[in-house]
Amino acid sequence: MKYIPDFSDVIAASELISPYINQTPVMTSRQLNALAGVDLFFKCENFQKVGAFKFRGATNAVMNLTEAERTSGVVTHSSGNHAAALAHAAVSRGVKAFIVMPETAPEVKRKAVSGYGAEITFCKPTLEARENTAAAIIQQTGATLVHPYNNFYVIAGQGTAALDMLAHCRFLDAIVAPVGGGGLLSGTAIAAKGINKKILVYGAEPVMADDAFRSMREGKILPSVNPKTIADGLLTSLCERTFSVIQENVNAILTVSEEAIIKAMMLIWERMKIVIEPSSATVLAAVMENKKVFEGKKTGLIISGGNVDLKNLPF
Amino acid sequence: MKYIPDFSDVIAASELISPYINQTPVMTSRQLNALAGVDLFFKCENFQKVGAFKFRGATNAVMNLTEAERTSGVVTHSSGNHAAALAHAAVSRGVKAFIVMPETAPEVKRKAVSGYGAEITFCKPTLEARENTAAAIIQQTGATLVHPYNNFYVIAGQGTAALDMLAHCRFLDAIVAPVGGGGLLSGTAIAAKGINKKILVYGAEPVMADDAFRSMREGKILPSVNPKTIADGLLTSLCERTFSVIQENVNAILTVSEEAIIKAMMLIWERMKIVIEPSSATVLAAVMENKKVFEGKKTGLIISGGNVDLKNLPF
Repeated sequence: MKYIPDFSDVIAASELISPYINQTPVMTSRQLNALAGVDLFFKCENFQKVGAFKFRGATNAVMNLTEAERTSGVVTHSSGNHAAALAHAAVSRGVKAFIVMPETAPEVKRKAVSGYGAEITFCKPTLEARENTAAAIIQQTGATLVHPYNNFYVIAGQGTAALDMLAHCRFLDAIVAPVGGGGLLSGTAIAAKGINKKILVYGAEPVMADDAFRSMREGKILPSVNPKTIADGLLTSLCERTFSVIQENVNAILTVSEEAIIKAMMLIWERMKIVIEPSSATVLAAVMENKKVFEGKKTGLIISGGNVDLKNLPF
Repeated sequence: MKYIPDFSDVIAASELISPYINQTPVMTSRQLNALAGVDLFFKCENFQKVGAFKFRGATNAVMNLTEAERTSGVVTHSSGNHAAALAHAAVSRGVKAFIVMPETAPEVKRKAVSGYGAEITFCKPTLEARENTAAAIIQQTGATLVHPYNNFYVIAGQGTAALDMLAHCRFLDAIVAPVGGGGLLSGTAIAAKGINKKILVYGAEPVMADDAFRSMREGKILPSVNPKTIADGLLTSLCERTFSVIQENVNAILTVSEEAIIKAMMLIWERMKIVIEPSSATVLAAVMENKKVFEGKKTGLIISGGNVDLKNLPF
């Protein structure tokens, strides 16, 4: 089996998952165009099911299970959007979902995941404890691990956001996606370059979690060490699979400060009247801080999600 | 000239203003349907120009000026969405706009109005000072007063939100709109009953500013006395013109507590990922607190606007 998906795998993912996902809108704002000096097109995955693009990749992974794998269920260790996405994608298609969560996960995230009908196992809040707990579940149940980004079908599924956007916006000169583990960015790059090799693809990354930026510069994976950023969806580091796609297909990683992320988040809430999470704001921040890069280019921005704790906003 | 618009005036308004307004989406949420036990359809005027339905009525008023009136400009006294709406509607059509604002109006509202190119005159924060200042401007300039709701064309224009919604949702059994001065609610009632006499029309009103509720009960206008509510768009009281429409065409006014407004606002932000102002949340609050009234009825909710101070949220 192939290790890295190509354009045909994104097309296949789109055919499989389209009946089950939301067709999210592409929005524009004349005010933000004026502020940025760039024509911007926002692909609003905050309106995706479970409030994030993660539902695309999770659905594609579930739909590619064999009959035997479907019977045993799926497992992942995550407290974020991928956990909710996998839970919803699996259970709504009749597949059991086992989610490993740190015992420190906020009540609201536990409730979301259990509300979708998944079985939660709590563990200590370390990567080792998570991986060991997931391994134990796999041994007991035979469940299939669906990693949040180091997964062929997940990457192909995430690529469908850009694919759908480009179906409506064939004129784009550039696309910017946030980068954490690299599932969305690598899927976006595969889709965009598959449609038009000339489209520039950029990753937007918090300077406080800049492993992708450093890895691209050094030509090898340098994981984040103790990353701290308000963009809580982007704390993870690249894996070999996503790095190799990004190295080959992404034009540059643009890093953004915490202040720029918060400012961009407020701009989008105020001007566009949509709720987005901090990770999503990195893409507008990257444009605002690099106006020369985007000057004269019609630019697509992937708004990755809208799950925020309204009682704990950064402004 | 007619004092109160009828259905034909809403149709005429729609024909005039449609090229200049946003065609806002009707959104749905399965999660909110499940919580309310009602199928809900949200007409998202938070995505309207200037972030509120007010742009509809203001545009209709400006487009119905005579040539002589256009030359002298328009004037209003308001610090809210109507001021911004009139400023934008007038200036973008080549008409001068004079806006009277209390000197206590927040910086962000001053900037919005001056950003649209209007001329602001500040006055003491009393109704008397506002009216006197507006009267002085009218005497000096000959400008036409465009009242936020006690105006034939404004009411007809506000009715186009329900008209547009019903063009896509002919199946609605009920519509709920917020009520402050009554411009939106009376326009909504004229439009809805004009399309289908059987559609139930409700007003949603903060219990802390319940002049419409009391006026309906007593059969005469009883203005709000010192209203205090987080729904800052609904502090105004009915006038004869809006009251007569509401008395004849609105099935009931449903009052909602401050707690219910805040809870509904959070639900919409969290589940639908859209930014709405507290006044808009009254409509969902009215459904949530009166589930028996809406049981089995496909219900349209008019989300009136999305202009909030993100630095001063109620949660």
